[in-house]
Amino acid sequence: MSIIKNYREIVKNSSSELNVEARKVALFLLETAISAVDPTKLLRNRVTLHKNTLKIDDLQLNLEDYRRIIVIGGGKASGAMAESLETILGHRIDAGLINIPEDSTHHLKERIIELNEAGHPIPTEQGQRGVNQMFDLLKTVDESTLIIFLLSGGGSALLPMPLQGITLDEKRMVTNLLLKCGATINEINVVRKHVSRIKGGRLAVASYPATLLCLILSDVIGDPLPTIASGPTVPDPSTYSDAIQVLRRYEIWEETPQAIRLFLEEGVKGSHEESPKPGDPRFAKVLNIVLGNNAVALEAAAKQAKEMGFNSLLLSSYVSGEARHVGTVFASIARELMVRDKPVSKPAVILAGGETTVTVTGTGRGGRNGELALNASFSLAGLEGVALASFGTDGIDGLSDSAGAIVDGLTIERAKDMGLNPLDFLRNNDSHNFFKQLKDLIYTGPTGTNVNDVLIMVGLAKSRARQRGETK
Amino acid sequence: MSIIKNYREIVKNSSSELNVEARKVALFLLETAISAVDPTKLLRNRVTLHKNTLKIDDLQLNLEDYRRIIVIGGGKASGAMAESLETILGHRIDAGLINIPEDSTHHLKERIIELNEAGHPIPTEQGQRGVNQMFDLLKTVDESTLIIFLLSGGGSALLPMPLQGITLDEKRMVTNLLLKCGATINEINVVRKHVSRIKGGRLAVASYPATLLCLILSDVIGDPLPTIASGPTVPDPSTYSDAIQVLRRYEIWEETPQAIRLFLEEGVKGSHEESPKPGDPRFAKVLNIVLGNNAVALEAAAKQAKEMGFNSLLLSSYVSGEARHVGTVFASIARELMVRDKPVSKPAVILAGGETTVTVTGTGRGGRNGELALNASFSLAGLEGVALASFGTDGIDGLSDSAGAIVDGLTIERAKDMGLNPLDFLRNNDSHNFFKQLKDLIYTGPTGTNVNDVLIMVGLAKSRARQRGETK
Repeated sequence: MSIIKNYREIVKNSSSELNVEARKVALFLLETAISAVDPTKLLRNRVTLHKNTLKIDDLQLNLEDYRRIIVIGGGKASGAMAESLETILGHRIDAGLINIPEDSTHHLKERIIELNEAGHPIPTEQGQRGVNQMFDLLKTVDESTLIIFLLSGGGSALLPMPLQGITLDEKRMVTNLLLKCGATINEINVVRKHVSRIKGGRLAVASYPATLLCLILSDVIGDPLPTIASGPTVPDPSTYSDAIQVLRRYEIWEETPQAIRLFLEEGVKGSHEESPKPGDPRFAKVLNIVLGNNAVALEAAAKQAKEMGFNSLLLSSYVSGEARHVGTVFASIARELMVRDKPVSKPAVILAGGETTVTVTGTGRGGRNGELALNASFSLAGLEGVALASFGTDGIDGLSDSAGAIVDGLTIERAKDMGLNPLDFLRNNDSHNFFKQLKDLIYTGPTGTNVNDVLIMVGLAKSRARQRGETK
Repeated sequence: MSIIKNYREIVKNSSSELNVEARKVALFLLETAISAVDPTKLLRNRVTLHKNTLKIDDLQLNLEDYRRIIVIGGGKASGAMAESLETILGHRIDAGLINIPEDSTHHLKERIIELNEAGHPIPTEQGQRGVNQMFDLLKTVDESTLIIFLLSGGGSALLPMPLQGITLDEKRMVTNLLLKCGATINEINVVRKHVSRIKGGRLAVASYPATLLCLILSDVIGDPLPTIASGPTVPDPSTYSDAIQVLRRYEIWEETPQAIRLFLEEGVKGSHEESPKPGDPRFAKVLNIVLGNNAVALEAAAKQAKEMGFNSLLLSSYVSGEARHVGTVFASIARELMVRDKPVSKPAVILAGGETTVTVTGTGRGGRNGELALNASFSLAGLEGVALASFGTDGIDGLSDSAGAIVDGLTIERAKDMGLNPLDFLRNNDSHNFFKQLKDLIYTGPTGTNVNDVLIMVGLAKSRARQRGETK
């Protein structure tokens, strides 16, 4: 075990041998899941170069068709993606620049692709300078250029570039107004796509007539390309007029910085270029490939479980909802597995992924995954041979410094024996401190990737010998 | 279609042919599920008499071993169970009395088993008179008597019988105190089992040395026998002292009626008989059989779906949690099915059951199932060929007069076209009025059975011909 730092401590946290075994399997598969979406490994496994042919899954690009290769991008994992890509393509890359978060660990200092430390989650001038340099690179492209754009979670903040006449501060202000007024992510994006030089397909326009290959590590459920970093490489059906309507609908038009109001109004009159619309021929030169996402992590774990002799069932990579209730629902499926050997037969691994939410009413410390696991443990109480692990693939579960937590059918009993009242911790949104005392937090540290959360449930059958013993 | 009254109206409520098809399958399987737990059919299908052998699943009773057969019981479905049992056993039954709710429809007036209309959900004197008569019948039993006890949902209120010196009013008072103070169902039952002459295994004691065959239609998730009607036929590990502790723990001891306090204190001193404990040899004469429950309904629908050519997956019969979030979770599984053909391949039916809760904050009208379906419809939006039906098997969904509702990927769009804001209805806990306007309520009327709620999701594959058409 290399990813989980406190593995030994966690697995022994049950008085039941069968539970210990289930915990081991769950934690092993957790490592499989995170490892499958490690950006370095993803590039290495999915992107190959054979002679002059660059292969990514079914896609084949003959590099002889291109005189130049430029690498740009941004995101929390994009530095590692760039490093790995440079290992594959080496000096075939002519130039490159990637915006990465400040204080990232990386090893590219002396290489071709430059790494620029930008602000996250608040966009900074340094980020904007990086994007400016990327656009300088784009000015030199022609039909024989291949642009590889590496996009990952955080890309929106790490690639800031307001349209002319708008400052970064003004852009930040309107985003804050939209976040506070309760606008949906799609509505927020309609506005963003009309004040940005990169979002809403504008990067594709700037890249034309070069070939634009976009490699994505998705941290948005379902990989909606128009949503990930506000869709720099996909068409945008919305208009300047739509953007104004959103701001008026939420009654924040008057508060919107004047430069932005003027810009949008001028846009409606046709003074500024619209974002490129569906059917725009320039998108014929764009190739979007999702290299890694929640489903990739889940499927790797499911495949591994199968190879280990488990029946495995991947329920969903689209899970959302209030964390504690999501925990109850999945625990109800675990109970069905343990009691009635459905939906599949034991030994089994049941997987799900996505991103839940926590409505905070207490003053405790915790994250989505901890709260999900804590509430699930009530529903698992009394079952033997089942373990449930819930964790963020980025290694950080909300306000916790852990990735998540692991529970079994004895968790509640063990807590009560320690004098803890699990319900009190749940009521106070204090899952972190609950699991800290139980020593059932899963510590990985930042994993360098992010494809949201993964839930792993392992159910073991009692051996025949033990069953006989029990029915005596 | 016979169970659903507005079938024709519901199925046509989609502009998509594929959705109409999915709706038809969901509603057909809804009828399969309810029909499978119809008390009359359950008795007819599971209980058979061949010459002198009464067979129930693997159990065989030679009726020549018994000189007398007495039928007693209570519950909302117990009248229909009695009617069906009398059809099977006829004049082999010597006497019988069943407590049923007031205004039940039944056809037993002229038969052997008498039906007594008792109060529900508030226990009445008439109910108590019925139980008194049952105990009079029990006074006549010996080793050669077979007592068949028919138990179904509502049995607890319909079979009231306080222990000597306690009035029905006093018993009601302590139950109300317990419900209000937030005690768990197990804690409430500890008290109930020590003030009742029938609960907590005491019926088994009163039936000894006769054989007591208990046939159960379970409306409690997971069929915990000590919980269903407070376990009249199973041992009770709790004591008079435990009952006092529960009342003290929730600080309602002082408010508890004096007769009950005295009774419990005398019980601790040994003045009253304890409820029978695990290991009590009198339970050797008891046979508990769950004839119908949520899982039976789900499995019938799953089997039917398989016969119709669907891949079917029974996820859980233990579902609980806040209805709206449960809806989101199951919709996320439906999305996985439609988009990624997992956890099983289309065409598929995914089933789950249990009982969710609604935390009411609005002033609208609705039930668990309506609210679950309403919130699920947000997560299904845009998917074609999927339908989700959620309904109470008793035909009554909370404050709605419908059994539940059905939704598909066009529900939200259709609502908006009608000028409705689905979020407003959700926020106001007003799913009934939402679905009333959409004409997507499922009307069955009272079904005469109750095994909690069932959720059916149907996902159809687009035909190859249509898929070709779309990719052109």
